[in-house]
Amino acid sequence: MIFLDQPDEIKRVSVAVIKRLPKYYECLGNLLKNNVERVSSQELSKILGFTASQIRQDLNNFGEFGQQGYGYNVQQLYLEISKILGLDTVHKMVLIGAGNLGQALVNYGEFRTHGFDIVAVFDTNPALIGRKINNVPIYSTEEIEYFIKENEIDIAVMTVPKGEAEKVAGILEKTRIRGIWNFTPVEIKLENEDILIENVHLIDSLFTLSYRINENKLQKRLLKQKRKIFPRP
Amino acid sequence: MIFLDQPDEIKRVSVAVIKRLPKYYECLGNLLKNNVERVSSQELSKILGFTASQIRQDLNNFGEFGQQGYGYNVQQLYLEISKILGLDTVHKMVLIGAGNLGQALVNYGEFRTHGFDIVAVFDTNPALIGRKINNVPIYSTEEIEYFIKENEIDIAVMTVPKGEAEKVAGILEKTRIRGIWNFTPVEIKLENEDILIENVHLIDSLFTLSYRINENKLQKRLLKQKRKIFPRP
Repeated sequence: MIFLDQPDEIKRVSVAVIKRLPKYYECLGNLLKNNVERVSSQELSKILGFTASQIRQDLNNFGEFGQQGYGYNVQQLYLEISKILGLDTVHKMVLIGAGNLGQALVNYGEFRTHGFDIVAVFDTNPALIGRKINNVPIYSTEEIEYFIKENEIDIAVMTVPKGEAEKVAGILEKTRIRGIWNFTPVEIKLENEDILIENVHLIDSLFTLSYRINENKLQKRLLKQKRKIFPRP
Repeated sequence: MIFLDQPDEIKRVSVAVIKRLPKYYECLGNLLKNNVERVSSQELSKILGFTASQIRQDLNNFGEFGQQGYGYNVQQLYLEISKILGLDTVHKMVLIGAGNLGQALVNYGEFRTHGFDIVAVFDTNPALIGRKINNVPIYSTEEIEYFIKENEIDIAVMTVPKGEAEKVAGILEKTRIRGIWNFTPVEIKLENEDILIENVHLIDSLFTLSYRINENKLQKRLLKQKRKIFPRP
């Protein structure tokens, strides 16, 4: 890679690239488990379904990892991507809203495996406060601000009902939390731009499935429209 | 749009475009609610954060919706995209695995609003069989095959524990189900290619948040590496 100008700032990596990073991470993790030592962009392409040139471009955003004729060193690339994703440190998280979804997330083992540690749950329901889910204590939502401050929490997971989303976001805005993982269907907007928000719209993925189920029918309809412009001979 | 060749087949729309469609749908739905009648690609760009030219390109995949100088008719485009996403019909769904996540999904009102109707839940736990969640009956997993056949189910939602994923996928493969919405961390592969699979990797979105939290630190590190190549004067 050649830099024509002396870089004072690095171009922000596009969201599309960022969204592909977890796929690389997962894929390389599987290769590692199977004792694969090196892999070419062509081989990665076959597993991941992105083109080899796309893969080389994506990874070039973060440095020069591959070697012509050798490919990528699986372990090295895996560790680099885990650093890029910030997975080389432990993220302390709290979860707000101990309903079914909240409980499912606290019970989900994968988070801790990757360094995401839910250390407290908050809820308004007096029947839940004082109890534990998967050994994680449930506190009153009134204690959120204090707890986050005292325990240097990085990420808050929001699984409260729709109607409580804004209020909880307002509480979080007063803290030094760094990110909100928002499972409510409410679009959270904060004035404090230091707090990053990642929205999970489960229904988007259902829409995608629905599109794919519908795709053949749709293609036929589009084809018909286009044939009107170029009628069959 | 000009077609140089007579189209016998339409180019498959890329996954990236498909993943953006729900965003258009949601955004247009909000505009409709606010009685906005027309919108330009520039205005959409401001709301959605994609470039105006990207938006025009995306929508051009499905026909010519906009009009130079007028923009898009909000209602018409909303209805078109809802058709493209297959939301103009009711999708009958079953859910397999009545744990916390399964219960959260059955209780989630948004699905039905968009025509996704969970009509039955299946579980292996005898204590749950015969009960209801949000008025939806819970049956034994032994009845999945029969139920799907009798009730012309389109989509199965898989919220079973990791260890049961393959077995349930094997049962579903014998049915005429059209799509599987897979919440298990197991990568489902079926020989029957008529069944489409949409995997929900919740952790990917957490990784994205972690990346963004880590981004400034990362940028500094990358900048340092690049400065080594072009040292400061």
